[in-house]
Amino acid sequence: MNLTDQVLARVEAESAESQRRWMEWLRIPSVSAQPAHAADIRAAAEWAADQLREIGFTAEVCETGGHPCVVGHHPGPQTSAAKLPRLLYYGHYDVQPAEPLELWSHPPFEPTVVEGPHGPRVYARGAVDDKGQCAMWLSAFRAWHAETGSLPCPVTVLLEGEEEVSSVHLKPFVAAHHEALAADVVVISDTGMWDIATPAITASLRGIVYMQVNLQAANRDLHSGSYGGSALNPINALTTALGALKDASGRVQIPGFYEGVREVPAEKAQQWAALGFDESAFLGQVGLTTPAGEAGRPALERLWARPTADINGIWGGYQGPGSKTVIAAEAGAKVSFRLVPGQDPQKIVAGFKAFMAAHVPSDAKLSFEEFGAGTGLEISTESPTVQAACAALRAEYGREPVLMGAGGSIPVVETLIDELGVEPLLIGFGLSDDQVHSPDEKFEVRCFHQGTRSHARLLGLLGKV
Amino acid sequence: MNLTDQVLARVEAESAESQRRWMEWLRIPSVSAQPAHAADIRAAAEWAADQLREIGFTAEVCETGGHPCVVGHHPGPQTSAAKLPRLLYYGHYDVQPAEPLELWSHPPFEPTVVEGPHGPRVYARGAVDDKGQCAMWLSAFRAWHAETGSLPCPVTVLLEGEEEVSSVHLKPFVAAHHEALAADVVVISDTGMWDIATPAITASLRGIVYMQVNLQAANRDLHSGSYGGSALNPINALTTALGALKDASGRVQIPGFYEGVREVPAEKAQQWAALGFDESAFLGQVGLTTPAGEAGRPALERLWARPTADINGIWGGYQGPGSKTVIAAEAGAKVSFRLVPGQDPQKIVAGFKAFMAAHVPSDAKLSFEEFGAGTGLEISTESPTVQAACAALRAEYGREPVLMGAGGSIPVVETLIDELGVEPLLIGFGLSDDQVHSPDEKFEVRCFHQGTRSHARLLGLLGKV
Repeated sequence: MNLTDQVLARVEAESAESQRRWMEWLRIPSVSAQPAHAADIRAAAEWAADQLREIGFTAEVCETGGHPCVVGHHPGPQTSAAKLPRLLYYGHYDVQPAEPLELWSHPPFEPTVVEGPHGPRVYARGAVDDKGQCAMWLSAFRAWHAETGSLPCPVTVLLEGEEEVSSVHLKPFVAAHHEALAADVVVISDTGMWDIATPAITASLRGIVYMQVNLQAANRDLHSGSYGGSALNPINALTTALGALKDASGRVQIPGFYEGVREVPAEKAQQWAALGFDESAFLGQVGLTTPAGEAGRPALERLWARPTADINGIWGGYQGPGSKTVIAAEAGAKVSFRLVPGQDPQKIVAGFKAFMAAHVPSDAKLSFEEFGAGTGLEISTESPTVQAACAALRAEYGREPVLMGAGGSIPVVETLIDELGVEPLLIGFGLSDDQVHSPDEKFEVRCFHQGTRSHARLLGLLGKV
Repeated sequence: MNLTDQVLARVEAESAESQRRWMEWLRIPSVSAQPAHAADIRAAAEWAADQLREIGFTAEVCETGGHPCVVGHHPGPQTSAAKLPRLLYYGHYDVQPAEPLELWSHPPFEPTVVEGPHGPRVYARGAVDDKGQCAMWLSAFRAWHAETGSLPCPVTVLLEGEEEVSSVHLKPFVAAHHEALAADVVVISDTGMWDIATPAITASLRGIVYMQVNLQAANRDLHSGSYGGSALNPINALTTALGALKDASGRVQIPGFYEGVREVPAEKAQQWAALGFDESAFLGQVGLTTPAGEAGRPALERLWARPTADINGIWGGYQGPGSKTVIAAEAGAKVSFRLVPGQDPQKIVAGFKAFMAAHVPSDAKLSFEEFGAGTGLEISTESPTVQAACAALRAEYGREPVLMGAGGSIPVVETLIDELGVEPLLIGFGLSDDQVHSPDEKFEVRCFHQGTRSHARLLGLLGKV
């Protein structure tokens, strides 16, 4: 029996105890958005620091100016023949508010085990997001520590208490703690599996450019009877310009928009096709029947690997009941573009500005606001880290992990990459029906257990033991 | 000296007294929108009824359910060889609120005579709209009564107290008083001249179709990262459809939209061209530089005799500060069409619905609301009434009156035509700089005086005396 097998046996033996600890953490209502829960937030942080200290970490609850971060460090094995990667495990111990409480089948902070189609599951706020996901790697650390007295690699832990409130203090905190957080790889468990039998690594994230455009026409609202036919209507102008953003096939019409966009490699495309994603069911859940987006491309490609242009908001003129015969003085819209790796956000910003200028009459004075511009992220599947993660998941599940894309961006990932220069590894065990952020959030015990085992395997592979 | 000349001499002699009466009325702050002025409203109505009784009218202040109407009747000459037209004079004694008071150079309800470029002018709320315009025909009646003991025609007066608050009770009031208000012609003085030396008759009004369109897409707001590229965005769909409402030349693209639209007759077009309307100045006042509307057509044609399509309001998604990465569940807009005589409002309603259905994807569930549909109005310049009015104005001003169009509709006109079957005559003496509805409303004494004389002349011509 090799060392990893011993550790996996320990995970089995400690399974009930692992679940008990996970549920203990879930009982602390660490809702970051609600000031009444400030003491609970701190208690959840202290709980995690205590856990880390029990298994050989030095750990501190650190002030950030907002809710605290937990930072723990374990030096790893005292001697090792190999040069070991320094691992940073990022997670968050805060949770979304549980309201509306009346929609929960079980009290959100009294974790309840219920038998489901895949065996037992635990209902609680934070069951999966992100306490459940963090509890898995904490259990994996504990099993390694119990069997070997150490961990296979040097490990730093960063647990945040403000992820559900936009991580407002994370960036300055990380910037101020470069040394304490120094690492080669950041392991983040806050994503999902393909399905309960099929593990996944999230290997690409779309970036985003988010802008507001304002059109100013006349210096005051005008009467549409007196001025209609002579004065520029900024809402007509705005719809004309934004209506031209895409052609009938859904292709974005900003010149240069697709510059740098790469086609999905054949191997990945084949893997995605083999997943048999049911877009009709995906859309049917939200009351839609017909795919939008670029015509002629597979759904997962449109969702994960193609850029978009969505108008997120629009306004102008009279929005009340009944009628008002006004030609508004101004109108505006929020427009965002999901970007894929290869696209330059600044070129997209400039391209959108130029597109609008070319599509509105000269009397429409344009102004823009920018709310963030980030590149898409592609994680090289050639890297030894990703290869190790694939091997760990393959061993655990007996099948190849899916290299998924994520349609959105994960700002925390960008922060950690930018500040620490770490390589990201996004390996998570949630399912799409886990009701994250909603009433009746749950996590499958089977996912928790196999996730813990996968993390234990990964540590062994990265530590080359 | 014929009878009309005698009456005009009387107008001259009584000029100071006419102005005194006009200003007496202006001192009563009959603001219909403000409940605190209810007693003033009634006082202004009683004032008018008293005026009418002094000159041989039977007159009553009549309840309407809101602010009262004044109805007066004068039988006209006891004997006449000719069949005389029965005239209905409509006007309103209520005024707009005067606020913001600090922007007035003179107290709004203490009429103040100030010397201006055209001689004396009177500053007061209601100076022109509409007490000043009504005071002119009241003075003309008084002069005829003083000289002849009667009026040249049977005259009914209808003075409303709710014109500035959408005439909410007018239609049912008129419907309930068909007999008392029976007439052949309704004379309305609530419009303007071309300029201080050039009288005008308003000979056409645009109609309107006003609709709201709602698009429902998904059954809830979606995350633009998770769904962007697959789910229909109703704001994109709305802008695409509405952006196609007009082509690059400003021509409305709804099939059949221009059905029934007639070209402006050459004679009228020449008259309008001769007016030398300065569209740059017109637009410059509101901060615009470039005409919108149909390319290649003269400004007055676009404003008076061509239909329009204006988006009066639009909304959807996130309108707050910053960014929200949402694909909205729904979006909507208010869209109105100014119509010209010949267009069928119901066909425009149907055409817009069909246009939207053809331009949005099937997942966008459309619904519509209608807020009124009225035809454009064209007053035949061949009618003896209009001919008489032209003759009266020609005699007074020594030049041909302009047959103006009005870009908007005047709902009162429609009400009176529909309910009473009267022929409308829109003859007014306001100037474009009279600041109607704004601080420093004024009326030129020269306009008041020549307007009174024009009304006196018109009565003589219609009475064939």
